[in-house]
Amino acid sequence: MEPGDAARLGPGRAARAPPPRLLLLPLLPLLLGRGLRVAASASSGAAAEDSSAMEELATEKEAEESHRQDSVSLLTFILLLTLTILTIWLFKHRRVRFLHETGLAMIYGLIVGVILRYGTPATSGHDKSLSCTQEDRAFSTLLVNVSGKFFEYTLKGEISPGKINSVEQNDMLRKVTFDPEVFFNILLPPIIFHAGYSLKKRHFFRNLGSILAYAFLGTAVSCFIIGNLMYGVVKLMKLVGQLSDKFYYTDCLFFGAIISATDPVTVLAIFNELHADVDLYALLFGESVLNDAVAIVLSSSIVAYQPAGLNTHAFDAAAFFKSVGIFLGIFSGSFTMGAVTGVVTALVTKFTKLHCFPLLETALFFLMSWSTFLLAEACGFTGVVAVLFCGITQAHYTYNNLSVESRSRTKQLFEVLHFLAENFIFSYMGLALFTFQKHVFSPVFIIGAFVAIFLGRAAHIYPLSFFLNLGRRHKIGWNFQHMMMFSGLRGAMAFALAIRDTASYARQMMFTTTLLIVFFTVWVIGGGTTPMLSWLNIRVGVEEPSEEDQNELRRQYIRVGVDPDQDPPPNNDSFQVLQGDGPDSARGNRTKQESAWLFRLWYSFDHNYLKPILTHSGPPLTTTLPAWCGLLARCLTSPQVYDNQEPLREEDSDFILTEGDLTLTYGDSTVTANGSSGSHTASTSLEGSRRTKSSSEEVLDRALGIGDQPVSSRGTRLVFPLEDNA
Amino acid sequence: MEPGDAARLGPGRAARAPPPRLLLLPLLPLLLGRGLRVAASASSGAAAEDSSAMEELATEKEAEESHRQDSVSLLTFILLLTLTILTIWLFKHRRVRFLHETGLAMIYGLIVGVILRYGTPATSGHDKSLSCTQEDRAFSTLLVNVSGKFFEYTLKGEISPGKINSVEQNDMLRKVTFDPEVFFNILLPPIIFHAGYSLKKRHFFRNLGSILAYAFLGTAVSCFIIGNLMYGVVKLMKLVGQLSDKFYYTDCLFFGAIISATDPVTVLAIFNELHADVDLYALLFGESVLNDAVAIVLSSSIVAYQPAGLNTHAFDAAAFFKSVGIFLGIFSGSFTMGAVTGVVTALVTKFTKLHCFPLLETALFFLMSWSTFLLAEACGFTGVVAVLFCGITQAHYTYNNLSVESRSRTKQLFEVLHFLAENFIFSYMGLALFTFQKHVFSPVFIIGAFVAIFLGRAAHIYPLSFFLNLGRRHKIGWNFQHMMMFSGLRGAMAFALAIRDTASYARQMMFTTTLLIVFFTVWVIGGGTTPMLSWLNIRVGVEEPSEEDQNELRRQYIRVGVDPDQDPPPNNDSFQVLQGDGPDSARGNRTKQESAWLFRLWYSFDHNYLKPILTHSGPPLTTTLPAWCGLLARCLTSPQVYDNQEPLREEDSDFILTEGDLTLTYGDSTVTANGSSGSHTASTSLEGSRRTKSSSEEVLDRALGIGDQPVSSRGTRLVFPLEDNA
Repeated sequence: MEPGDAARLGPGRAARAPPPRLLLLPLLPLLLGRGLRVAASASSGAAAEDSSAMEELATEKEAEESHRQDSVSLLTFILLLTLTILTIWLFKHRRVRFLHETGLAMIYGLIVGVILRYGTPATSGHDKSLSCTQEDRAFSTLLVNVSGKFFEYTLKGEISPGKINSVEQNDMLRKVTFDPEVFFNILLPPIIFHAGYSLKKRHFFRNLGSILAYAFLGTAVSCFIIGNLMYGVVKLMKLVGQLSDKFYYTDCLFFGAIISATDPVTVLAIFNELHADVDLYALLFGESVLNDAVAIVLSSSIVAYQPAGLNTHAFDAAAFFKSVGIFLGIFSGSFTMGAVTGVVTALVTKFTKLHCFPLLETALFFLMSWSTFLLAEACGFTGVVAVLFCGITQAHYTYNNLSVESRSRTKQLFEVLHFLAENFIFSYMGLALFTFQKHVFSPVFIIGAFVAIFLGRAAHIYPLSFFLNLGRRHKIGWNFQHMMMFSGLRGAMAFALAIRDTASYARQMMFTTTLLIVFFTVWVIGGGTTPMLSWLNIRVGVEEPSEEDQNELRRQYIRVGVDPDQDPPPNNDSFQVLQGDGPDSARGNRTKQESAWLFRLWYSFDHNYLKPILTHSGPPLTTTLPAWCGLLARCLTSPQVYDNQEPLREEDSDFILTEGDLTLTYGDSTVTANGSSGSHTASTSLEGSRRTKSSSEEVLDRALGIGDQPVSSRGTRLVFPLEDNA
Repeated sequence: MEPGDAARLGPGRAARAPPPRLLLLPLLPLLLGRGLRVAASASSGAAAEDSSAMEELATEKEAEESHRQDSVSLLTFILLLTLTILTIWLFKHRRVRFLHETGLAMIYGLIVGVILRYGTPATSGHDKSLSCTQEDRAFSTLLVNVSGKFFEYTLKGEISPGKINSVEQNDMLRKVTFDPEVFFNILLPPIIFHAGYSLKKRHFFRNLGSILAYAFLGTAVSCFIIGNLMYGVVKLMKLVGQLSDKFYYTDCLFFGAIISATDPVTVLAIFNELHADVDLYALLFGESVLNDAVAIVLSSSIVAYQPAGLNTHAFDAAAFFKSVGIFLGIFSGSFTMGAVTGVVTALVTKFTKLHCFPLLETALFFLMSWSTFLLAEACGFTGVVAVLFCGITQAHYTYNNLSVESRSRTKQLFEVLHFLAENFIFSYMGLALFTFQKHVFSPVFIIGAFVAIFLGRAAHIYPLSFFLNLGRRHKIGWNFQHMMMFSGLRGAMAFALAIRDTASYARQMMFTTTLLIVFFTVWVIGGGTTPMLSWLNIRVGVEEPSEEDQNELRRQYIRVGVDPDQDPPPNNDSFQVLQGDGPDSARGNRTKQESAWLFRLWYSFDHNYLKPILTHSGPPLTTTLPAWCGLLARCLTSPQVYDNQEPLREEDSDFILTEGDLTLTYGDSTVTANGSSGSHTASTSLEGSRRTKSSSEEVLDRALGIGDQPVSSRGTRLVFPLEDNA
């Protein structure tokens, strides 16, 4: 085989075996050089130079035109967002609640999509594409020889053969169709990070067990049920003859995974606005945030499972366990990655006194948080999951070390980024319904999917709530369960997962169905949240304490907590945990303590060792570490800890309710740190909650009244940080 | 000609005339379909489906690998930035001044560049590229048929034939070489916007005439001189035989344009830190900011001029005037675009009461500012220039309408973006020295360029200062001129302009030279600023008033201004303009008034009409507009204007010194608004400045003493806004 052959790749030669590439590598410039000479000599001869200048000019003009179109398409989105913001303001101003801002963004997106689709002429796409046949597979980079000039091309994606015509016809439509990776790598991270960073940890950790159960078990159950139901639907479609291409079992499971990711945005925004019950808020928020993470990892492990079965795409026990292993590996890897970056940032901000320069501090914080995402992606883990846990760690540790200015800066920066990214995604969803060019509408599949997600959600909310209620003192009431059932709307994450790969027929059908489900749930369920809340008798108007000052928070907290006749179930266990050091109420929480044993161990570890090491707060390490590592302890403990714990605490509680709230919530954890918790005896749930209330009232009154009196419990030096008089 | 021929594009067929594309368009799917069938039938036959699954898998794996490498390369930059931030902190902490942060970022970039260049193995680039010969020109999109699958490729850029081998060899180096458009479209806009938004308008407008002269005339002179000198150097190189490819006269002019863009970053950061003289600061800052805009427009009009001469690339009077026309068109278009978006944002924020929702307001502000850039690019103007003027307009009008929270948010947001973008660019510059793969080092050219930029700067600073001093009462002293001469360092903008197009040999040589000039100026001149300031006897330690409260500012202002024996020249004319309504001092400023006639007209228009229409401040329109448009005036005037002008004023002056300072500076403008300024008589400059000082002292004392007493001048209702007692 002559080396020159490789330069001439016609379809007629495609049958040959690919030449050994390593051998070809040093010859490549030669080959290309030869191709160049052939092409140049074949061109118009004498006027070659002149025409090449003209061509260069034409290429430059074309690149300019392309750049202009890029600008126009981005501009479209920005104007859309601007319009959305103005309308949101109008809605907020007039207190319109039947349509949320995200729904609004989608409507505007839809309108612009229709205009782009039917209003713009088929532009000059025709002279921009050329076909060229390659040997055996697609490469990520392509060198193209054009009359002696070499141009580098990068792979954009696969196009299904039937759609090539429409791709050709409307250049503008193609321009507004973004690279799906943009959603995953640019728009999702700030949204997810913000969710982690602004997490209301008090309510979150109070319901941690239930949240984890809903997020992990619930999502897995939902994924499996939806996957199987959809496989039935697909079989049915095959019988009826509605299916024109392959649709494997793993595809169905993949659909189950992506559609199981519930969206926190719309419902929770309404909850926040109406000041609905905090525990329900915590359950829904926690579920949907972790849910997203679970769905990402689940879907990628299903994809990883696919190749193992190759063409069979059937169920295989070994492959199943392999994908479970992948799931666990990816999840724990991403979790570790996020936590480690957060810890590193905390250490850096603690030991460098960077807080004298808030701009540097904010920049460092931003970069470290972003690097988590990239680090995880580079290691093959999931960046979005890593960023979530990084956000939680940053809020828990790093936030305490930041200067006051940086706290507001970081908070505001991520708030703005989150807002823009979120509205962009929803606008894009609206736009995609008309501008996306690979839609596969299948009524049977769509109806099946709606039924499946309904059943899938019912099949995990009700049974899981039943089992959780066996263990929970504070039961999840029927109205809460119905509300959770109702609030399972799908949003940005399902969309981002669905758009990530739309190469095959099955994936295109999934994408279209996901889009419609998102539309339906955001408009109908999002709009129906307020009526549903009042219909289910769920209390609204409970003021959320995060924005108010701490003093008000404490008042508030008592007011909500000690009012026993208003609605007992949701507020009981918020004070139940306060009983830790009161021996009279200790009998009632054995179940709780046992189930949360690991978590309480973690909490005391965090409070006694991690907080003092990573932040300027907490008890001095010299008191918590054993005597023989005294020198190390003295090095690691911040000098601030010794002389003034109170002012630091107060700063802590400004934005994110850390220390104080955790201590409030897990006041009993320190008791168990010395192992005495096992001796508690159980009592009936009702009695426990009665006792709880009175004891919590006492504790709170004492704490608020006496102020900075430390409530030391046995073994550890835990200060009750409820004082507001500093 | 058969339709199937287009699908087989071998070099042997390149000689044919391109087929009529409009005709081919409807046939394209057919053509591609045929290519597909040929390729599919030629492939391994029975096992076709299985192998296609394997191929799909391989492509997916490859895409994943590529994605991972992208993450790693971004991660490299982020870690670089993190390292830079930590070192900056260390330097600031230890008060090290011989090396600025930007210089530091470059050094880190250099180190990482060396590691990447010599430390990483030649990775798997070899199996990712394939050559494929096209007919006549490069297309922006390419459809490639691979065994029945269609892949879309987008044009990345041209590669010079000699470099193909190195492109192949190191994939990692290629990955860290960003798309130059990233600099222009993502990194520069926030930097430039921030420059406009945080412009200290008082000092800027006080020296506006000189700034415009330096920026427009100076840059043009510098560009022309450098271009001609370099053409001489190129001729010399050709004689010596050092030049291996074409280098046209327009290329030389282009080099003159890109290298004339001086950088505000390093010197001004040091000025700011040392609190150096405010007027020198204003002159340098104003020059370098507008300079950048001028250089962009200049370089793009030189590029536009090029095609007119086609291959002659020689001087042509018609083409020259055409390119001057293009220059004026682009500049004024961009200016208008920026100003219009700013005005629209001001109107929206004024009339919607969006300030109740700071998040929405900030988001809107951000989007509108960004849309300026895109709008200008979409219309064929220069986005960066538009963004600069948008920033100035936003600071002048919109800023007054924002809520307090949004003011700090927008300020901080752009500050962080600016900081990150700037350090990223400088890190990248360091990195590019070793990782950029098309360097053309030519010692003669480099030495020539250093001499040329020195002469080019000398040839505009000294003559222009001489002419400006004829008109200025407050002369630009020799020490200031020397400092301006010395401070002409090149930075991000020159780099961004140079990297934008590195296709030809000439451009590559320019890029390498620019890079070295940037390195030299940032390290040597940036580091030498502090010694130079003390050597030239330029006062440092003048506290910059922008961060302090207004009260302190006024004190400060008087202290600096009325102290006649400290350094008379730079501070005289800051008060000279205050004499407007004092008839005793009016004789001395005829020259000044005449030259600034247009500007003063603008100022009174701005104060009487634009400010009241666009913001909540200024005199009510009902008093400034003629009686017959009373209804309109009442609609447009904000109700706040009538009842409390003072609190609004005070808010204005928090971040950006608007109203008060402008009025202070151009106090005489209102006098001239009714046309009476022409009657003033001239006196010697020295006498004028003496008188000025005493009168300005009086005016200031009166203003500060009496507080809110309005100093009405004839015709217009101008309130002297110096009161601090509100």
